[in-house]
Amino acid sequence: MTIARIGFIGLGTMGGPMAANLLRKGFELSVYDVVPAAVERAVGQGARAASCPADAARGVDALITMLPDGPVVRDALFGPDGAAAALERGTLVIEMSTIAPSQSDALRRDLEAAGLRMLDAPVGRTPRHAEAGTLLVMAGGTEADVAEATPLFEAMADTIHHIGPAGHGIRLKVVNNCMAMVGMVMTAEALTLAAKAGLDRDTAVRVMSGTAAGRGQLIMNYPNKVLAGDITPDFPLRMGLKDISLALQFGAEMASPLPLAAAARELFALAPAWGREGQDCTAMLLLMEDLARVGRAPAER
Amino acid sequence: MTIARIGFIGLGTMGGPMAANLLRKGFELSVYDVVPAAVERAVGQGARAASCPADAARGVDALITMLPDGPVVRDALFGPDGAAAALERGTLVIEMSTIAPSQSDALRRDLEAAGLRMLDAPVGRTPRHAEAGTLLVMAGGTEADVAEATPLFEAMADTIHHIGPAGHGIRLKVVNNCMAMVGMVMTAEALTLAAKAGLDRDTAVRVMSGTAAGRGQLIMNYPNKVLAGDITPDFPLRMGLKDISLALQFGAEMASPLPLAAAARELFALAPAWGREGQDCTAMLLLMEDLARVGRAPAER
Amino acid sequence: MTIARIGFIGLGTMGGPMAANLLRKGFELSVYDVVPAAVERAVGQGARAASCPADAARGVDALITMLPDGPVVRDALFGPDGAAAALERGTLVIEMSTIAPSQSDALRRDLEAAGLRMLDAPVGRTPRHAEAGTLLVMAGGTEADVAEATPLFEAMADTIHHIGPAGHGIRLKVVNNCMAMVGMVMTAEALTLAAKAGLDRDTAVRVMSGTAAGRGQLIMNYPNKVLAGDITPDFPLRMGLKDISLALQFGAEMASPLPLAAAARELFALAPAWGREGQDCTAMLLLMEDLARVGRAPAER
Amino acid sequence: MTIARIGFIGLGTMGGPMAANLLRKGFELSVYDVVPAAVERAVGQGARAASCPADAARGVDALITMLPDGPVVRDALFGPDGAAAALERGTLVIEMSTIAPSQSDALRRDLEAAGLRMLDAPVGRTPRHAEAGTLLVMAGGTEADVAEATPLFEAMADTIHHIGPAGHGIRLKVVNNCMAMVGMVMTAEALTLAAKAGLDRDTAVRVMSGTAAGRGQLIMNYPNKVLAGDITPDFPLRMGLKDISLALQFGAEMASPLPLAAAARELFALAPAWGREGQDCTAMLLLMEDLARVGRAPAER
Ligand SMILES: NC(=O)c1ccc[n+]([C@@H]2O[C@H](COP(=O)([O-])OP(=O)(O)OC[C@H]3O[C@@H](n4cnc5c(N)ncnc54)[C@H](O)[C@@H]3O)[C@@H](O)[C@H]2O)c1
Ligand SMILES: NC(=O)c1ccc[n+]([C@@H]2O[C@H](COP(=O)([O-])OP(=O)(O)OC[C@H]3O[C@@H](n4cnc5c(N)ncnc54)[C@H](O)[C@@H]3O)[C@@H](O)[C@H]2O)c1
Ligand SMILES: NC(=O)c1ccc[n+]([C@@H]2O[C@H](COP(=O)([O-])OP(=O)(O)OC[C@H]3O[C@@H](n4cnc5c(N)ncnc54)[C@H](O)[C@@H]3O)[C@@H](O)[C@H]2O)c1
Ligand SMILES: NC(=O)c1ccc[n+]([C@@H]2O[C@H](COP(=O)([O-])OP(=O)(O)OC[C@H]3O[C@@H](n4cnc5c(N)ncnc54)[C@H](O)[C@@H]3O)[C@@H](O)[C@H]2O)c1
Repeated sequence: MTIARIGFIGLGTMGGPMAANLLRKGFELSVYDVVPAAVERAVGQGARAASCPADAARGVDALITMLPDGPVVRDALFGPDGAAAALERGTLVIEMSTIAPSQSDALRRDLEAAGLRMLDAPVGRTPRHAEAGTLLVMAGGTEADVAEATPLFEAMADTIHHIGPAGHGIRLKVVNNCMAMVGMVMTAEALTLAAKAGLDRDTAVRVMSGTAAGRGQLIMNYPNKVLAGDITPDFPLRMGLKDISLALQFGAEMASPLPLAAAARELFALAPAWGREGQDCTAMLLLMEDLARVGRAPAER
Repeated sequence: MTIARIGFIGLGTMGGPMAANLLRKGFELSVYDVVPAAVERAVGQGARAASCPADAARGVDALITMLPDGPVVRDALFGPDGAAAALERGTLVIEMSTIAPSQSDALRRDLEAAGLRMLDAPVGRTPRHAEAGTLLVMAGGTEADVAEATPLFEAMADTIHHIGPAGHGIRLKVVNNCMAMVGMVMTAEALTLAAKAGLDRDTAVRVMSGTAAGRGQLIMNYPNKVLAGDITPDFPLRMGLKDISLALQFGAEMASPLPLAAAARELFALAPAWGREGQDCTAMLLLMEDLARVGRAPAER
Repeated sequence: MTIARIGFIGLGTMGGPMAANLLRKGFELSVYDVVPAAVERAVGQGARAASCPADAARGVDALITMLPDGPVVRDALFGPDGAAAALERGTLVIEMSTIAPSQSDALRRDLEAAGLRMLDAPVGRTPRHAEAGTLLVMAGGTEADVAEATPLFEAMADTIHHIGPAGHGIRLKVVNNCMAMVGMVMTAEALTLAAKAGLDRDTAVRVMSGTAAGRGQLIMNYPNKVLAGDITPDFPLRMGLKDISLALQFGAEMASPLPLAAAARELFALAPAWGREGQDCTAMLLLMEDLARVGRAPAER
Repeated sequence: MTIARIGFIGLGTMGGPMAANLLRKGFELSVYDVVPAAVERAVGQGARAASCPADAARGVDALITMLPDGPVVRDALFGPDGAAAALERGTLVIEMSTIAPSQSDALRRDLEAAGLRMLDAPVGRTPRHAEAGTLLVMAGGTEADVAEATPLFEAMADTIHHIGPAGHGIRLKVVNNCMAMVGMVMTAEALTLAAKAGLDRDTAVRVMSGTAAGRGQLIMNYPNKVLAGDITPDFPLRMGLKDISLALQFGAEMASPLPLAAAARELFALAPAWGREGQDCTAMLLLMEDLARVGRAPAER
């Protein structure tokens, strides 16, 4: 089925430009937002104003939601004048907000019970990319549903990943953003220590931009070591413990807080208890899996 | 002054191949290690065996130490039969081990008191790079001293950074390795959560290798935001808090531990107390500096 | 007003015995729970079975809710057949569940908009205490409302605290339980380290039960130091940093994880940046307030 | 053997008053400290001034060290003019400083190699207690050695614990102080959250001083639950996770940092992975032992 008419709910920082890009590519949009000015802007770009979610949903081939959080999405779909009841049976709902996976799953369950289909298709990147139509989409759903939505995604994004079955898009989005946000703090604590140690910031940034510190272990060491099944030590966990311990001592001397390094050290310290101290530092992944009991059935507990 | 004869103490996993590369480039080496087999191997490559640190130091133009930790370096330099007393006044000691900055500083102080010079020049990368002569050197010291040592560095490394004055090499090394080791855990906790969420690992790795999660905030967002003096929000700290909170809730549902994300969240949570919740996530650096009071004189406390 | 007839919603592990105690003290109860067996048990003890929350609310002088979480309480009060609409104007709703303060506040707002009154009165202790009628109540609300509810509390609890105005009961409950749960982990990490160090557990428990480690800083050192305005050092933050650093080093040697101590150390390490390293360890409270900017108006930021 | 003459090295904040109490009880002391004024004060109280550690050690029945850290103790015993060489064979060295267990062990090894005996007997409490002679001693060593030192301990302390064999005194001291220092932060983060939530501090302190939050899980719930072998749930780990999660959400709303609670939550979150979510919260100890592999031989790894 080819999608021509789209209901779009949520015209904020992200949804506004996303809707504009869909309009630019020739899709017909009926749009709704609780903020009238947001609706008017879209109308100025060629959209039809809807008076409520249900109104936005009437007669469309697909519905997109781009809202702040899960309860708001639920309200737009199933609240008073909600969209779900106004959609034709079989219509595709493309949920693009960043919400809890459990809330996404519950929405899908309820949409399917109402004879509808849902894709979870959250986006990565920033408002600037939303405007440029260069977002990154992580879609979870069937091949067919993702294929059906792809022309829409292409109007808004330049990178489209079909992550896996239903729910996998939002799951990877949550994992990805978690790691990205931890990276914000990791970088901040390192540069703060550098500053307190009297190091020149530009030099520190330039040098660390060329090492695994700045370039990321996921790209630098994981692929050819633990992810390739090789945990022979390039740099063993034992030496990782030594180095992170030196840093914590140095941080204490400089009165520079290292909350992430402190938490990380306790995991390096656990390596010998699991017989892993001589393995490559990337075997930290296996240690974490040990602790989380990845792949263990309850019976093995 | 051109260095031709080098004393080299510490022929282990790193020091062994480093010495071999110096020999290959035509330097004369007198070598010492507590393990006789390590000395013999170097002798087989053309080195002269020394019977103690002092013996290795006699008549050389420069001394390199590549030892496990600070107390061992101190012992090799100032212990019984230590190298320092045997070096000619003015000789350059190139300390390449990873040791505590405070220990490095104390060694320099004592070497200078003995009329000697010291460079702190720890190395990055792995034994494989030591063998290939492609290490990374972070040198701290005067321009002249670094210039004098550069031919030696070039025999062992393909990336040579003069970080700054004395002590700055080891300081950046410690900061760099700290961040690299935190990255080991950050990556492990994200991939473990992905696994417990049932995501396909290859897909997760592939997708996140293209985002700031995998590619590193130091390279992706810091340079054009906070480091460029721009903290207008591409993605505000407020939304970072939202996303990392979603991840922690998801981690708890999956029984997947997120020790770093948990520690990081408490910093995002502090942003409003410092009036920073609407600033770009890279302003996490400024928040960390607030907490650590970077640039505050005691009087301002 | 004297309360005689009570609607009681939520007859689980806690609510069941609480209702039983109210019945035992002569109150008339109309009870509702989604689990019919729970209702039947209460009926066997003298309660009237209600068919829905609204039914439980009809004709009562006060309504008690003791439910799993905030959304469930909302549903019981404002969902289909919800209790709120069935209560007479002015009736007191006594919300005793442990829920998010923001959810409690929102419930109060909506109940007051409906002409009703609400007390937040969560309970401490365990099911055993619920059965024995020896719970601890933390009530938030007006003097008059608390006084009105006190006879009910006395049927269920032997310790009744009027914490403060509306919302303060649930707030302190959340703070209290947080600290209690952190204490679970703090104790576990200390005893695990003791075990890995080969110490006799009984001896460790016996000795530490007599020190501030086991007896709690809130009771042992805070009252006569920082809470009394005295931060002259009995034991300065500087020495606290020394001791916790020794412990972390020891934990790493024993491969015993100390996640709380690791997080705590980073705060001790910050003391000098705030000019507090020479102050008593209980000045950790002031340091935490510095970081959280307690008492700072936005203008001062 | 009865000890009459004592060498005492280290007359600081603690050692000064400890020496004074020994003098008061009639022991003969020869004392040494690098600070002459400290020595003079002791001389004014009846001690004999020694010119170096060796001088303090000559002719004594026992030697006490009360020094800042392990390297200083080593220096006093084995450095130039060190005490060890001057002690008669068989003399008891009572090491009372707080130092790393590994350093304590190494000192014992070297003292025994020199034909001497050592007790590790660090102290708890504060300078005030040192003055009052009401310290707490945690002694590690043989029954005979502890018995021999007991009259000395009784001059300085009112609580004397023989913890176990050699090394166990300093080990428990380190564990104990770690937990005490974590308690400093735990209390601070709870009271800071209370403050930011607008709660009255006195009320919060008063109420929590009566619950397990303030009174300590080691005393309140551990003894009759996990330590008694009973992990049937008074309050299951599942509900602990709920409550600590509520607190973290509340902390984020209040912009109040909860670094310890954040770290603790990740352990509660792990409970289901280890089949423990339905067990009593005190089973956190068993979970921590699972993670640290207490009691596992390497073969079982
Ligand atoms: N901003 C980013 O950089 C970014 C990046 C990736 C993903 N996201 C996610 O995208 C989603 C939207 O983010 P945003 O930045 O556009 O947020 P926003 O707050 O700017 O926009 C949300 C829009 O939803 C509207 N809205 C709220 N309640 C509504 C209701 N009941 N009915 C209809 N409209 C309603 C608001 O008026 C607003 O226009 C969020 O889930 C966010 O996490 C944001
Ligand atoms: N291995 C790596 O990947 C790596 C990478 C970068 C930096 N480093 C750092 O380089 C330094 C050396 O590391 P390594 O991996 O070669 O360690 P190693 O343990 O393999 O080698 C140390 C060598 O020093 C010798 N030695 C010990 N005590 C001595 C003494 N008193 N006198 C003389 N020789 C003595 C040992 O016999 C050994 O040969 C360390 O500080 C380490 O942190 C290592
Ligand atoms: N268990 C404890 O030790 C303890 C201690 C202090 C506070 N609390 C708090 O008390 C509250 C109740 O805890 P509990 O242990 O009794 O829980 P529980 O799960 O045993 O009981 C909850 C009861 O609510 C009923 N219920 C659920 N949804 C309902 C609905 N929509 N309408 C009517 N009834 C519904 C359930 O059937 C159940 O009987 C929770 O907020 C808990 O955090 C518990
Ligand atoms: N202060 C407390 O509340 C407390 C409580 C329990 C345990 N402790 C522990 O007791 C020990 C002593 O603590 P303190 O508070 O008395 O410290 P302090 O710094 O006040 O005293 C140490 C003394 O050792 C002397 N000293 C230093 N180097 C010396 C050397 N080479 N030779 C001889 N004397 C030397 C110093 O001059 C000083 O008088 C430490 O290990 C500390 O951790 C302290």
